[in-house]
Amino acid sequence: MKNRKKAVVLLSGGLDSVTALVIAREADFDCYAISFDYGQRHRCELVAAARLAKQFGAVEHKVVGLDLRSIGGSALTDQNIDVPNHATAGIPVTYVPARNTIFLSIALGWAEVLGAQDLFIGVNAVDYSGYPDCRPEFIAAFERVAGLATRAGSEGSPLTIHTPLIDLSKADIIRRGTALGVDYALTISCYDPDEEGRACGTCDSCRLRAEGFAAAGLDDPTLYK
Amino acid sequence: MKNRKKAVVLLSGGLDSVTALVIAREADFDCYAISFDYGQRHRCELVAAARLAKQFGAVEHKVVGLDLRSIGGSALTDQNIDVPNHATAGIPVTYVPARNTIFLSIALGWAEVLGAQDLFIGVNAVDYSGYPDCRPEFIAAFERVAGLATRAGSEGSPLTIHTPLIDLSKADIIRRGTALGVDYALTISCYDPDEEGRACGTCDSCRLRAEGFAAAGLDDPTLYK
Repeated sequence: MKNRKKAVVLLSGGLDSVTALVIAREADFDCYAISFDYGQRHRCELVAAARLAKQFGAVEHKVVGLDLRSIGGSALTDQNIDVPNHATAGIPVTYVPARNTIFLSIALGWAEVLGAQDLFIGVNAVDYSGYPDCRPEFIAAFERVAGLATRAGSEGSPLTIHTPLIDLSKADIIRRGTALGVDYALTISCYDPDEEGRACGTCDSCRLRAEGFAAAGLDDPTLYK
Repeated sequence: MKNRKKAVVLLSGGLDSVTALVIAREADFDCYAISFDYGQRHRCELVAAARLAKQFGAVEHKVVGLDLRSIGGSALTDQNIDVPNHATAGIPVTYVPARNTIFLSIALGWAEVLGAQDLFIGVNAVDYSGYPDCRPEFIAAFERVAGLATRAGSEGSPLTIHTPLIDLSKADIIRRGTALGVDYALTISCYDPDEEGRACGTCDSCRLRAEGFAAAGLDDPTLYK
């Protein structure tokens, strides 16, 4: 029996990240899912992440605690900043400063401990919220950091960062995941859900998601408030 | 009165980082010190950091909680791995996977919230422990990530990462800090101190520190067990 390759997969509990997980599994990786309890308003996404990691055969699911509330600066980590219920210009207030850099860094640390040389992240440069840390040039720059930052990288085993969704529309992502058996009813994308995890239907993330199902010609299984 | 520039300074409570802090202050920055409660064995360094931040006039000192024990892989975060009491070849077991990448990422997030365009880190490429994430090429790669990752960077205000100690020997660092008024008795460098913060005298960090005082021709004020 040959040794299967390990991949660390960033799993938020939302639509994109679970699609990245099933794509990694389909590519024959043993998947190690990582989520972050960072003080997010929509903490119920962690319950969804745990369920999804189990359902889609992750070897392990780790939730790392990290207090980004202490830094604030985002509607997602500061209860005093409201989540907008309409589209806004520029980088929106739901942007969490340096979030993907922080998450990738911690995932990089875990990859090094596991001996994994592959990392999957469900960033997307088409139907996204205008966050700077979802762009291909950001990912490429981080990959270079990863190669220099670690023991493995400096000993000639650099990390590859896979972004299988980066050029897909939301509809394409949904079609791809559906074909691979994802039940999107299990995912939570909303930035401002109620305590039962029901979606608001009006935040950026809800709007992009609903438009994605419509464009894919599929029923939207999201449970709304 | 002109607006002073803000700098985020990574402050561990050790010898190097406080020297970086006084250098930043000397360069006329308003300093925002950041430390991490990451599950380190030598957690008493945080008490030292708080004291140093206050003594050297940091405008604010933030301690961010972050559970790196959940990832492990280092003698500093895993109680089952002993801190070596003699020099070892290659990258030592006290290396914490991706630690500087993680710390810089969180500091980057805070810098963005503060509107700071400068960050100081006391890494050193001469008398150090062979950690890959202390090299100038790593810092340069991270600076590029910082420019792409954030709102500020993507709007034309990138972050500068200052590494004032990178080319200094430990003795030079000690001489420089002493000239700027640092009392190194207040700092904790040891990886394996006792509960009162007294140093072991035998770990890598203690050895480099003791050799630095000797080479600088200064009394070593460290309190040993």
